[in-house]
Order: sequence, then structure tokens, then C-alpha cells
Amino acid sequence: MTTTPRLVEVRQKILKHNDVAARKLRQRFSEANVTVISLVSSPGAGKTALLEKVLRELGRHHQVAALVGDLATENDAGRLGRSGAAVKQIVTNTVCHLEAAMIESAIGEWRLDDLDFLFIENVGNLVCPASYDLGESVRLVLFSVTEGEDKPLKYPTIFNTADIAVITKMDLADPVGFDLAAARNAVESVRPGMPVLTLSAKTGDGMGQLFELLLASRVSTNC
Amino acid sequence: MTTTPRLVEVRQKILKHNDVAARKLRQRFSEANVTVISLVSSPGAGKTALLEKVLRELGRHHQVAALVGDLATENDAGRLGRSGAAVKQIVTNTVCHLEAAMIESAIGEWRLDDLDFLFIENVGNLVCPASYDLGESVRLVLFSVTEGEDKPLKYPTIFNTADIAVITKMDLADPVGFDLAAARNAVESVRPGMPVLTLSAKTGDGMGQLFELLLASRVSTNC
Repeated sequence: MTTTPRLVEVRQKILKHNDVAARKLRQRFSEANVTVISLVSSPGAGKTALLEKVLRELGRHHQVAALVGDLATENDAGRLGRSGAAVKQIVTNTVCHLEAAMIESAIGEWRLDDLDFLFIENVGNLVCPASYDLGESVRLVLFSVTEGEDKPLKYPTIFNTADIAVITKMDLADPVGFDLAAARNAVESVRPGMPVLTLSAKTGDGMGQLFELLLASRVSTNC
Repeated sequence: MTTTPRLVEVRQKILKHNDVAARKLRQRFSEANVTVISLVSSPGAGKTALLEKVLRELGRHHQVAALVGDLATENDAGRLGRSGAAVKQIVTNTVCHLEAAMIESAIGEWRLDDLDFLFIENVGNLVCPASYDLGESVRLVLFSVTEGEDKPLKYPTIFNTADIAVITKMDLADPVGFDLAAARNAVESVRPGMPVLTLSAKTGDGMGQLFELLLASRVSTNC
């Protein structure tokens, strides 16, 4: 592993650049009074399905927009755009995470002052996005019941950089024999005190609690 | 994105180092007549559950061993070790993929000549492992029915570096409304002609086809 120190060194520089860019973004978001929520998870944990519901519900009384990252395709922007919200796809090609500079570039033309909420759906990945601050106010880390209860233990870094854990696809909990207590314990052991929401975007169960939390985060951002 | 070219340059050097190490590994595996199968997928797609069954079944008539990568915990090595096979955990900490040097280090003490099959379970990630040759004979890319049919379109690079696509958790296909034809089309469009297996490690459906394929890959390795 003689090559690692060089990579670590370059990564540190890139992360520093990213942190500077993220700090500027956070300042812009704050001045425009827009609450920025990012979503991270493994591929297929249900970020887009959840966001479809969130954009529709919050969009009834608030101005909402979304940026969505993927290596390829504009599928998710197409899905989210049907909610009526302003949505932009960020295609990263081979890059396994979003970076602050990509967010800055993507929101280039948008009038942030007109927005209440901006959602950022990261590339599906439980590792790489952990290191990149995107200037968000709140970071949600999702994992689905089909992935197993031990994901927080196996990917502790991403749980440590997130604010709220969301367990998705609860409608499949019985078919897969999901052990909710074990999952809660796994979250608690890597991030004591982290709030855990359980929901199903498909059935709507638990979504009310998420909406309340998002609205509360807007209030606290305003304070 | 002024930082990218520097990172690309360093990555290229690292990949070159990795390719050299992987080539040496492949030569060693060939000389020892061991068939090396790697598994890549997103977190929770069912690599370990599949491997538990594979190690037990192939272990009845062959000498099998496994290396398993994770950022943290030795959970998977514990699970796989119960099959009776030799198993070693590679803990990568923050690294989102296995590298050839990690494999070389992990097999340090093993007598490869005594093995028929060596399985390598990569870190759960549909992006980073794509670039790292591990000296394997066959790379399986898994995705579960719960992740959605479009994963091959969204993560084309990993499908392009793999030899066989395995759709897992077919026992959940009905509850999640999985469209198998759409998934097959997605694989076909990013990697025309790629074999697609469908199975459930839980019920055992489709596992026979996988065993046949693994045994066939051993025969072809010997030729």
C-alpha cells in the first residue's frame, strides 16, 4: 500500500477545497432563508421514492426544489419533476458522490430567495458521500429494511456525518424478518442519540413524522 | 472543479499500481489452479447470504475459501466462517473498495495450492470497486429486486467490468412489483449479451444454475 499516502494527501486538499466551497454555499443558503436537506443511502434504498412524496406534500404550501445526483441517466430528475417542483439532475459520470462545487454549479440560475426547501439527493453510496459537506442544514441517511439491520455498524462514517437516520420500506419488514430493535441498537451504538424514523413511502406510514421533522428543521433554520 | 485533474492523475497512478499487483495475483492463482470469483453489489444486496449458501454447497466436494471486505466489523467473516470454509475479513476503514494489494496481504499465509475456489466479497458499493482488478477469474455483480430495475443504467461502469449479473431476493419480486423484463433490458442495454441469473438465496430458487455456472468457470479456468 505504498501508494496510499499520496492519495490521502491529494484527498485532503480536495476535501479542504470542498469545505471552503460548502461554507460559502451554507452562507448563501442562510442569506436566502432556504432550508437545505440532503439524502444519502445505498443504491435502491428509496431516496427518490421518498423525495417524490416529500416534494408533493411540502410543495402544497412551500416552494420546493431538488437536485439529484447519479453517475448516469436523468431518470430520477424525470420522476421528481412530475411533482411540479423545480428539479435538476447532476450527472457525475464516474464520481461516486456529489461535491459542493457541483451544487454551486447546478443552482447557478436558480433564485434561491424564492425557495423554502432545497433537497439534494446524493449518488447512491454509503461510503464516498460521507466526506463531502454540501452546505446542507440537515443530512438524512436512509437504509431500507431489505439491507439488513447491521448497516450502521458496517458504514459508521456516513452515519456519523448524518443528522437523522430513516429506515425505509417498512412495508417489507415482515417479509424479510426485519428486527427493528436490532437496527435501532446499531444506530445507537455508532451515533448515540441519533433520531431514527421508520416509514414506508409506498404505504405512507410514518411519513407524517418526517414532514413534521422537516418543517421543524425549517423553523430552527430561521432561528 | 479545478481540483479534478490532479486527482485523476493520482488515481491513474494508483490504478496502474493496482493493475500490476492484480496481474501478479492472477498469475499466482493460475499456477495454484484456484478459481477466483469476486462479488460486487450495493450494500445489502445479499452478497453474504448468497456466499453462505455457495460455500456450504461447493464445500461438499471442493476446497473453498473466502475473503470479505467491509469498512468496519468482522460480522461477515463470522457468518461465512460457520460454513466451515477458511474465511478472512479485510477491514478497509474508510476505503470504499478492495485493492489487489489487500488481497495479496490477506492470502499471505494461505496455501493456494490446496484451494479449488476462492471467493472475494467486495465492500458494498456500486461505484468504487469497478476500477480495481483483484486478479479474479469471474466477477459477479449482484442487484436485488428491492433496488429497482434501473440500477444497471445508473451504474453502468460496474456492470461493464463484471462478467455475470445476478438478480437476488427474487422471493420479494411480487411484494415490490419487480419487472424482470425491464431489469433484463437494462442489463442488456449497458452490457449486451451479459448472462443474467435470477435467484433467491433464502428459498434456494435459481441457486442450482449458479452452482453449475461456478463449476463451469472452474473447468474453463483449468483449460
